[in-house]
Amino acid sequence: MRKFNFCAGPAALPEPVLRQAQQELLDWGGRGCSVMEVSHRSAEFLEVAERAEQDLRDLLSIPDNYKVLFLQGGATAQFSAVPWNLFGVGDKVADYIHSGQWADKAIREAKRYGQVNIVASGEDRSFTYAPGAESWTQSDNAAYFHYTPNETIGGVEFDYVPDVTCPLVADMSSNILSRPIPVEKFGVIYAGAQKNIGPSGIAVGIVRDDLLDRAMEGIPRSLSWKVAAEAGSMDNTPPTFAWYLAGLVFRWLKGQGGVEAMSTLADRKSTLLYEFIDRSDFYSCPVEKSSRSRMNVPFVLADERLDKEFLRQSEEAGLLNLKGHRSVGGMRASLYNAVPLEAVEALVSFMADFEKRCA
Amino acid sequence: MRKFNFCAGPAALPEPVLRQAQQELLDWGGRGCSVMEVSHRSAEFLEVAERAEQDLRDLLSIPDNYKVLFLQGGATAQFSAVPWNLFGVGDKVADYIHSGQWADKAIREAKRYGQVNIVASGEDRSFTYAPGAESWTQSDNAAYFHYTPNETIGGVEFDYVPDVTCPLVADMSSNILSRPIPVEKFGVIYAGAQKNIGPSGIAVGIVRDDLLDRAMEGIPRSLSWKVAAEAGSMDNTPPTFAWYLAGLVFRWLKGQGGVEAMSTLADRKSTLLYEFIDRSDFYSCPVEKSSRSRMNVPFVLADERLDKEFLRQSEEAGLLNLKGHRSVGGMRASLYNAVPLEAVEALVSFMADFEKRCA
Repeated sequence: MRKFNFCAGPAALPEPVLRQAQQELLDWGGRGCSVMEVSHRSAEFLEVAERAEQDLRDLLSIPDNYKVLFLQGGATAQFSAVPWNLFGVGDKVADYIHSGQWADKAIREAKRYGQVNIVASGEDRSFTYAPGAESWTQSDNAAYFHYTPNETIGGVEFDYVPDVTCPLVADMSSNILSRPIPVEKFGVIYAGAQKNIGPSGIAVGIVRDDLLDRAMEGIPRSLSWKVAAEAGSMDNTPPTFAWYLAGLVFRWLKGQGGVEAMSTLADRKSTLLYEFIDRSDFYSCPVEKSSRSRMNVPFVLADERLDKEFLRQSEEAGLLNLKGHRSVGGMRASLYNAVPLEAVEALVSFMADFEKRCA
Repeated sequence: MRKFNFCAGPAALPEPVLRQAQQELLDWGGRGCSVMEVSHRSAEFLEVAERAEQDLRDLLSIPDNYKVLFLQGGATAQFSAVPWNLFGVGDKVADYIHSGQWADKAIREAKRYGQVNIVASGEDRSFTYAPGAESWTQSDNAAYFHYTPNETIGGVEFDYVPDVTCPLVADMSSNILSRPIPVEKFGVIYAGAQKNIGPSGIAVGIVRDDLLDRAMEGIPRSLSWKVAAEAGSMDNTPPTFAWYLAGLVFRWLKGQGGVEAMSTLADRKSTLLYEFIDRSDFYSCPVEKSSRSRMNVPFVLADERLDKEFLRQSEEAGLLNLKGHRSVGGMRASLYNAVPLEAVEALVSFMADFEKRCA
């Protein structure tokens, strides 16, 4: 029996997607083998690959002057790829917003290759908010401007897209496909798959054409967006099963009404949980209201000695993976697209009940 | 119905492995979710990861002073990783054997970071043999010596391990786990998974401890063996499903009798096919006898105008993916561990029949 799964990643996948994958795992469309067992260059797999790209383009209304790449190494490899691909022309200077642990990882890697200006940071209030644009000073000569629209660990989400004069680069790993986005405002969007796209082991890159010629000398092939773009993301053997599953997820998303429907659902799910937490004296959320993530809801119990019991009982109640990130403790409920409203209703109901019994 | 699959990669997987994966795809061990849907840092996934490593260590008798890494980006990423990880101490010079297309790719990438000496090349006879050690001149100052024990495209396999004075590095993508290997003779072994290990999207690295501290300044995190080793191959979210499947393959291999049994089987399968080809005037194999791969058997028809018909009819007979690599044409039968003897018997029977009808 499937349980409700609030894992931050690798996260829950849509059940119909898993059912289809299961059904055809040994014999894919009557071909007598698995989709895992065919060449990535075969006509049948190319069809999978192209359909996945087209569906993603449709879902996010990606303009034609953007390449869609299917990459390996997750967002972490992109933390290196961003400076490697964009520091080859002009000054090796970039603006970064420091909004939490994931922004920090991106910043650390970029600093190894050039100068990083922190244009805004949430550090003054323990990264519990998304810094606003009021107080920024952008660099004149920045090669790009990087930010993390949703901090998976901190549960902080930007409710606006920065308006900048250089190419805007975003690590959208944990909120891509949860709402419509104005792709044309971005130079580069990248996202590890294991939250809203598919299983871990594949990442998506959306790169504006004119940014493919700015790489530093000596960029490793595997990090080059240009190499990936020219090879149709097949310079090396791609993770075909992950690509196929991502394609099934995109198809499922279309059937659900696309990112507009996902956005409405994300509002309902997160509002339900946040409102419950805010009404309670027993639970609290450390994140400022205007910056609260619709994807990752961190919360703490009034008495942390009850954490273990909360986790034990929630598991027993069929609510999986509510433990907060090891670096912050407490709880975290991740409410990605594949987590149904019923899961959040069940969670809130359990939380109310637990409070009654233990508060 | 499952057919016989001779794909060069992503290649056939053992049917019992696929069956287990299928059976528990939605509900893994009664946990109420898929193995794809749990954190890579959860106790349950760590158990999968550790068991896979231990089984691989057992299968290849990997000494304790070697790290086993589960990596992303395939062998192609390792073409960059090798010079990046090994050129940081001493001269940026490396010896390479040029044995075909895969060696060439490794060489091209290494040349971007240092000096490559081609100590031996099969180019004089169109890469139809594995150059022997008689005529080599190793560099005095090489940081490492690289070769490709099995050329997947050319069907050329080395029947010996080079005896060299610097760390020996091998791209074992297409013949790892097909025979016992003296790991202690190697500095680094790497292999993309999609032939003898599991699905595409994961690669294995086996790195001797003392080689972890030789990286060049500025190595991207995602290419660093040291970072991977220190993080238990979890510096970023690993491809968990591919790792799990690799683990099931290792377990299956142990049940089959390990690499000794696989080696015996590889002998039987490849001998059956090569002997049939050699007896025939209609089929021929361009590779010199002493260098013929037990994993990838390229062959051509006497009249290439029959290629299309051969492929059409073989497909119809349930023998999949016999088309040769797009760069060389002809046919290729890949006989990895998961391809049973019956598949080769069926292939030979079909080939004999086709010859009778069309020769």
